[in-house]
Amino acid sequence: MTKEDENAALGPDGQPLSKKALKKQAKEQEKAAKKSSRQSAEDASKQAGDTEVDYSEGHYGKMAMLQSSEKVSRELARVKDLSSSITGSYIWIRGRLHTSRSKGKQCFFVLRQQQYTVQCLVAVSEKVSKAMVKFCALVTKESLLDVYGIVRSSPQKVEGCTQQDVELHIEQLFVVSAAEPRLPLQVEDAARPENEDDPEGLNIRVNQDTRLDNRILDLRTPANQAIYRLQAGVCSLFRESLAARGFVEIHTPKIISAASEGGANVFEVSYFKGSAYLAQSPQLYKQMAIASDFDKVFTVGAVFRAEDSNTHRHLCEFVGLDLEIAFNYHYHEVLDIIGQMFVDIFKGLRDRYADEIAAVNRQFPAPPFKFLEPSLRLEFPEAVAMLRAAGVEMDDEEDLSTPNEKLLGRLVKAKYDTDFYILDKYPLKVRPFYTMPDPHNAKVSNSYDMFMRGEEILSGAQRIHDPTFLTERAKEHGVDVSKIKAYIDSFRYGVAPHAGGGIGLERVTMLYLGLDNIRKTSMFPRDPKRLTP
Amino acid sequence: MTKEDENAALGPDGQPLSKKALKKQAKEQEKAAKKSSRQSAEDASKQAGDTEVDYSEGHYGKMAMLQSSEKVSRELARVKDLSSSITGSYIWIRGRLHTSRSKGKQCFFVLRQQQYTVQCLVAVSEKVSKAMVKFCALVTKESLLDVYGIVRSSPQKVEGCTQQDVELHIEQLFVVSAAEPRLPLQVEDAARPENEDDPEGLNIRVNQDTRLDNRILDLRTPANQAIYRLQAGVCSLFRESLAARGFVEIHTPKIISAASEGGANVFEVSYFKGSAYLAQSPQLYKQMAIASDFDKVFTVGAVFRAEDSNTHRHLCEFVGLDLEIAFNYHYHEVLDIIGQMFVDIFKGLRDRYADEIAAVNRQFPAPPFKFLEPSLRLEFPEAVAMLRAAGVEMDDEEDLSTPNEKLLGRLVKAKYDTDFYILDKYPLKVRPFYTMPDPHNAKVSNSYDMFMRGEEILSGAQRIHDPTFLTERAKEHGVDVSKIKAYIDSFRYGVAPHAGGGIGLERVTMLYLGLDNIRKTSMFPRDPKRLTP
Repeated sequence: MTKEDENAALGPDGQPLSKKALKKQAKEQEKAAKKSSRQSAEDASKQAGDTEVDYSEGHYGKMAMLQSSEKVSRELARVKDLSSSITGSYIWIRGRLHTSRSKGKQCFFVLRQQQYTVQCLVAVSEKVSKAMVKFCALVTKESLLDVYGIVRSSPQKVEGCTQQDVELHIEQLFVVSAAEPRLPLQVEDAARPENEDDPEGLNIRVNQDTRLDNRILDLRTPANQAIYRLQAGVCSLFRESLAARGFVEIHTPKIISAASEGGANVFEVSYFKGSAYLAQSPQLYKQMAIASDFDKVFTVGAVFRAEDSNTHRHLCEFVGLDLEIAFNYHYHEVLDIIGQMFVDIFKGLRDRYADEIAAVNRQFPAPPFKFLEPSLRLEFPEAVAMLRAAGVEMDDEEDLSTPNEKLLGRLVKAKYDTDFYILDKYPLKVRPFYTMPDPHNAKVSNSYDMFMRGEEILSGAQRIHDPTFLTERAKEHGVDVSKIKAYIDSFRYGVAPHAGGGIGLERVTMLYLGLDNIRKTSMFPRDPKRLTP
Repeated sequence: MTKEDENAALGPDGQPLSKKALKKQAKEQEKAAKKSSRQSAEDASKQAGDTEVDYSEGHYGKMAMLQSSEKVSRELARVKDLSSSITGSYIWIRGRLHTSRSKGKQCFFVLRQQQYTVQCLVAVSEKVSKAMVKFCALVTKESLLDVYGIVRSSPQKVEGCTQQDVELHIEQLFVVSAAEPRLPLQVEDAARPENEDDPEGLNIRVNQDTRLDNRILDLRTPANQAIYRLQAGVCSLFRESLAARGFVEIHTPKIISAASEGGANVFEVSYFKGSAYLAQSPQLYKQMAIASDFDKVFTVGAVFRAEDSNTHRHLCEFVGLDLEIAFNYHYHEVLDIIGQMFVDIFKGLRDRYADEIAAVNRQFPAPPFKFLEPSLRLEFPEAVAMLRAAGVEMDDEEDLSTPNEKLLGRLVKAKYDTDFYILDKYPLKVRPFYTMPDPHNAKVSNSYDMFMRGEEILSGAQRIHDPTFLTERAKEHGVDVSKIKAYIDSFRYGVAPHAGGGIGLERVTMLYLGLDNIRKTSMFPRDPKRLTP
C-alpha cells in the first residue's frame, strides 16, 4: 500500500473497504463513540485538571457495559494481520493493554491479542488532547480496549512485539472492560522464558501454584495460548486419522456401578440412595461396542484415577483418547493402525502447528520431537538387552521401572533417532488378567506400550475374547469372578478378536512439546491437592 | 462379470485378485483351515453319524481361539459390497449367523455384518459333505463365522436381506467365536419395525429394559447400528462447523469443588479426605476460557444431573456439546453462529447419513426433519401470542411449560414448516442470575432457547461480564455471593462480552430421528434407576 492509500481502512479480509462502506463505518463509529464515552470523557477531563475545551471528547473513555444495545457493523482488525503492507490504513481493533508507559505528551502501550502484540502510540496532536493522553496513561493493565488509529511503519524494529515493523497511532480509545488495578500476577512475568539470562535474579518468575490459582491470567501468556491450541490439534488429528479409517466415535458412561479393577484408586459417588464409582477407563464399554459390531471405535473423554500420586505426570482427572479395534487374524493389524495414527498426529502437529510450537519453545525451550515412519517397533527382550548393555540389572519378566523407561528412551533415541516408539510383547505376568497370552511362549503376552521422549503414553493389548479362557485367567490372577460377571458375559454371544489402547491426552501434549509438568497441559488440573479453580 | 470369471476372487477393493495372489491365498487358506478345523471336523463327522470319509474335512469347523498365532494375508470382503456385478467371484467374508434353517441336504442361513445381510447356502455337493451341512445347521445364532464361497445371482429377490440380488454358495465355513445357544433376546425381534402389521400379536417385541440389560445384543440391530453412527456424525459436524470458524476445543474438569448452581441436583464425590461434586455444566470453565482470551471455544463431554426425573428425555449423565463465544457488539452475532452451526449439522446429516436415517426409519418411522436456512428466529412475545391464539392462557413473563413447548413446536411447524427454531428474548425472571438483561426492557433478557420438534435442545444467553453488576444480580436472586466468589472473580481482569449455550447430544439425535425415548440414543444410559451395564 502506498502513501496515497493513507486513509484506506481495511475490511475483515484485510482488503480496503469501499468509500461507501468507509463513510457508513465512520458515521457509526462516531455515533457509538459519542454515546458510550460522554460521561467518561468528562471524568478524564476532570482528572486532567484543565478546564479548557477537550477537543478529543467523544473519542475516548470508558464504554458503558456492553449489553447488546445496538448492532454495530464496525469491522475489527486482528493484530496478527498488521504488517507493513497496510501502513496508512485506519483500523479499529480490540485487544488488551499488555504494558504501557507515558512520558509527557505521549503514551506508548502494547496491545495484545492472544499471542500477538503490537505497539501503540497516543500522542498529543490536533486530534488527540492532553486529557486523552492522560486518560490512556491511567488505563489498567489487562483491560480490554477498542482503539482506532492509523497503521504506521515503526522507525525501528519493535523488539518486544510480535508485529515488529508497524505501530498503531491511536486517535480513539475506549475501555470495553476494565481490569482491576492490582493483578495477582503479571502476564509479562508469567510469560518470561525459562532460560532467559538473569544473573542478578531481578526478573520475577511466577510459581506454579500462583499460576494455577490465577489461571485465567496465566492462560493469557503466549505459551499457554499455544499449548491449548496445539492440544486441540492433538484431539482433532486423532479423530481425523481414525475417522478416515472408518472408526465410529462412541461415548461411554463415567458413572459406573462397580469399580473396574478391584476397587483400588477409584472415586466413589453417591448415586441417589446408593453409591457408584467414576470410571478409571472406558475399556469395558469399548469392548462392549466391539461385541456390538461397531468394529472400530474411539472415544475422547474424562478418565478418573484416585491415586495419591503427586508427580510431574499424574492427574486425578485427565482426558483419555481411547480406541478399540476388531482385527482379522493378528493384533499387529491393530499395532499398525495405532502406529500410523501417531505418525499422522506428529506430522499434523509439525505441519499445522509450527507457530504454536515456536511460541511454546520461546518460553520453554525443547529439542524438536523426532519420529520415524513407519513407527519403530521393538520387542521387550530387545529393550531388556539394551538396558543390560547400559549396565542395568533386570529380570527377563520384570516390568520397566520409571527410571528404566527414561533410560531406554535415551538409548532408543541414540540408536534410532526417534522420540516415539512401540514396545511390543510385554511379559505376561506384569499385565492385567484380560491380556491375551502369546500363543508361542507362555511367559509373553500380546501387549504393548508406546513411549514419547521415554515416557509411557499408551498401554494396550489384544484382549481375551473367549469367556471360558477369560474366567480361567481371572481366577489365576485371584480376581473374584462374580464381580466381573457382566464383563465376562459380554463375550458369550460371539465377539471378534480385538485389541486397543488408551492414550493420555495431557501426556501427549506435554511430551510432544518437551514440557516438564503435566499441570502445564491441563487447563484446570485436578490432583490430590488441587480441586480449584 | 461373466461366467468365465467364475473362479475369480476379489481383493479388498472389490477388484479381482491376480492369479498369483489367488494361488497364494488358496494355499494359505488351506493351511489355516487344516490347522483350525482338524478336531471339529472329526466331531461333526461323528455327529453326522456316518463313518464314511468326510471329503470336506479341513473345510469347516470351529477355529481355535484366535490368539494371533500367525499373520494371514487373506482379504475379507464386506457384505455391503456384494452385488450382481461380482457374481462368479470367490470370496472370504466374516459375519454373524443371523438366522438359519436346514432342510435335508442343504442349510440356508443369513450372514449379517452390522446393518447388512446376505443369504448363504450350504448344500451337499462334490465339495460339500453331508457332515459339513450338518455342522452348519448346528451353528448357534449370533456366532461369528469365516465363510468362503462363490457369489451367485439369486433366483428371486431375497426379501429379508439388504443384498437382494445375490447369494453366497458356501464351500468353507469356520466358527471364529461361538455364541451361547440361549440368547436373552433375539436380534430379529429387537429389530422388528414398530409399525409392522401384526393383528394376531404373534411377533415378539422386546421391551426396553430387556434391551438395555442385554445391550450388546440390542446394539446389533440395524437401527442401533445406524443411530450411533449418526450420533457420531452429529459430534463430528458440530466440531467441523465450529473449527471452520476458528473455535478452539477445550476440556473442562468434571470434578469440581463447589456445586455449580446452589447444590441442588448435584452428585457428590469422595475426594481423598474431602468431598467434591460432579459438574452439572462446563459453563464456568467455558467462561474462564473466554476470560483467558480463547475467544471462541467448544467442549464435548460428560455432564451430570442428579435429578430424580424418570421421563422420556432426562438422563443423569449425558454428553454436552457446549460452546461459548466472545462477541463484538451484540449477542445476535453469537445467535447467528449457532443458528448456522445447526444448519450445517442438519445438512450434513441429511447428505452424509441418508442410509443411517433410512435404516432407523425402517424400524422407527418418522417424518423427515425439516429446517430453514437461515434458521427461524422468533421472539418470546411472538410465541406467547401464538399460544394464546391457540387458546393457551399464560402470563407475559411466564416460562413455557413442557406441553406448551410441544404445542408451540406444532404451531411453528404449521406456520413456518420447520422442525428447528430459535426462541429469543426470554423473560428475565425465568432465567439464571448471570443472564444479561435486555438494555431496553427491564423485564426481558438477552437469552434464548432452541428447539427441535418442539423440545428444547439448547439453552443459552449473553452472560453478565461485569463483576459489580453480576454481584448485584446474584444478590437480587438470593444467591450467596461468597459461594460464587471464584466465578465472579473471573471477570475482574477484563473480559470480552460473551454468549454461549449448551446442547444435549442425545436429545439432538433423538429429536432429529423422531425417536420417542432418550434411552434409544444413549449407548449405555444412566437414569435414577439404571446404572448398568
